[in-house]
Amino acid sequence: MRIAIDAMGGDHAPEAPVEGALAAAAEWPDTELILVGKPDAIEPLLAGRKPANVSVAAATEIIGGEDEPVRAVRRKTDSSMVVAGKMVKEGAADAMISAGNTGALMAVGLLVLGRMNGIERPGLAPMLPTLDRVGVLALDLGANMDAKPEHLLQYALMGSMYREKVHGLPKPRVGLLNVGTEPGKGNELTKAAFELLGGAPIHFIGNVESRDVLTRNCDVLVCDGFSGNILLKAMEGVADTVFGVLKKELTSSLKSKLAAAMLRPNFRNIRKLMDSKEHNGAPLLGVNGLIVKSHGSSDAVATKFAIRQTRTAIESGLIPALAGEFGRK
Amino acid sequence: MRIAIDAMGGDHAPEAPVEGALAAAAEWPDTELILVGKPDAIEPLLAGRKPANVSVAAATEIIGGEDEPVRAVRRKTDSSMVVAGKMVKEGAADAMISAGNTGALMAVGLLVLGRMNGIERPGLAPMLPTLDRVGVLALDLGANMDAKPEHLLQYALMGSMYREKVHGLPKPRVGLLNVGTEPGKGNELTKAAFELLGGAPIHFIGNVESRDVLTRNCDVLVCDGFSGNILLKAMEGVADTVFGVLKKELTSSLKSKLAAAMLRPNFRNIRKLMDSKEHNGAPLLGVNGLIVKSHGSSDAVATKFAIRQTRTAIESGLIPALAGEFGRK
Repeated sequence: MRIAIDAMGGDHAPEAPVEGALAAAAEWPDTELILVGKPDAIEPLLAGRKPANVSVAAATEIIGGEDEPVRAVRRKTDSSMVVAGKMVKEGAADAMISAGNTGALMAVGLLVLGRMNGIERPGLAPMLPTLDRVGVLALDLGANMDAKPEHLLQYALMGSMYREKVHGLPKPRVGLLNVGTEPGKGNELTKAAFELLGGAPIHFIGNVESRDVLTRNCDVLVCDGFSGNILLKAMEGVADTVFGVLKKELTSSLKSKLAAAMLRPNFRNIRKLMDSKEHNGAPLLGVNGLIVKSHGSSDAVATKFAIRQTRTAIESGLIPALAGEFGRK
Repeated sequence: MRIAIDAMGGDHAPEAPVEGALAAAAEWPDTELILVGKPDAIEPLLAGRKPANVSVAAATEIIGGEDEPVRAVRRKTDSSMVVAGKMVKEGAADAMISAGNTGALMAVGLLVLGRMNGIERPGLAPMLPTLDRVGVLALDLGANMDAKPEHLLQYALMGSMYREKVHGLPKPRVGLLNVGTEPGKGNELTKAAFELLGGAPIHFIGNVESRDVLTRNCDVLVCDGFSGNILLKAMEGVADTVFGVLKKELTSSLKSKLAAAMLRPNFRNIRKLMDSKEHNGAPLLGVNGLIVKSHGSSDAVATKFAIRQTRTAIESGLIPALAGEFGRK
């Protein structure tokens, strides 16, 4: 099994991708990890400790966070992200992982790998954190800003198959993100999607409200890219703010510091709640090959989790299964 | 000044509206509070302590949470909500407040009071909580599920005027809820709205991400009713969950209980963060008269805050000012 890793993408590149790959290489000797990027940036980090299953593939350019996605992918043909995408296309790698520019990574999916037959719009599918730490697969979270009901149906089918094959979850419960739980609620998009999902060969449980995501009342959350992004960032924003205030209050006096020290294990449990590191690695579903988005702020541990997720997806035969399902249509 | 209060709406009716009205009547002797609903439910609660500025207006029916909004407003013409709306229309009250069925209250706005000239879709405008407890006025939060760019422009103008007149805020900063801060981000709706807002006579500061709302980087947040609702409920959901887990952890052992007792004032500060009681009272902007939505779970204190907000809006001359602004177009 070979996984191409964009060594130049993300806030902590190239250190985080390299260290993550080394950790993964040690844990899974059957997996070949190919670090794609500038050799003079990567090789020094590997000096004296490069295992047999880690290699470097040269790419001279970098797509940055500020680059306009489509133009960057078209012009920077020797960038680490595009080169990794080409390796997947040509069969030199079974999957690629990048923590770089999300829009550019989606453009790599569309322009380098191409859409899967039967899929109109690929969807980005991260796991949202839940109280029980199992997580909910949500799609689309930002690839498709103006979704049509048919796109949401395709997300439901792909997300359902992902959770079944990659996470081993039988009959995943599919929910539709909406403003109320009753049928008939929502905007034109969700009303039409509700009908389509109701007739699909999935375990559709109906509308789900954003306030209930954390209690994991579904396993796959279907939404358009715009509202999904609003949801995700609202969750992150509130959690960060509350924990920030908590920290400030707990260090505000000697008395509070003392009490906080007594509560350290409890706070660790609470903080874990919104720690999505182990969920890192969002597949871009609906393109001809496996592309996994690692969080931009990923450290080595988070990178290793993304590699673990990618390994499982390759082993499960996800992409051939999706191609078989949608290619027939 | 006369305010009609739907005494039968909300989770704690009629007690909360009645007690809230009594508290407000004591604080503001210049304000006449008219409790609308079933006299045999309201009068016993007032027995022996009805001040001169509190009265009861009879209405025999109730619109419940499960009622289909438009049908309920059309058929239940003697419901407390519809009767209160008619009082505003006929000038018997300067405003109405209800904690009942939100959809039905919006239907009262449209069917009983009617749209304001120049406004295509009224918008519901609650205050979202912020870290500094000042709050952000957000609209629309659920009245208009399929907004057009022009609707968002009207929300921006109305919200800006509301904050200026009712909250005394000069040059309120208007932000557009979006998936990124750069111009050009978003879906078709927000891209077009961005252009319109940029040319409007308001202090438009550009796109705002949902994660930044709590830090109050704008004073008026413009959004369509669907994504606004997703945002609001996500914020509530995460806050409730985090505080729920905090409570559980802090009562999990004798040691944690002891430490938690030492931290009580700190936790009170944190809890206040998301306590939106003092922001209670969301105006339905764009109808011919002042309709204020009180939160469904409002107690007497929250009800009194909604009354305070309504008083200020009446005193500020908001409705004539809005009518003057939009009627000309």
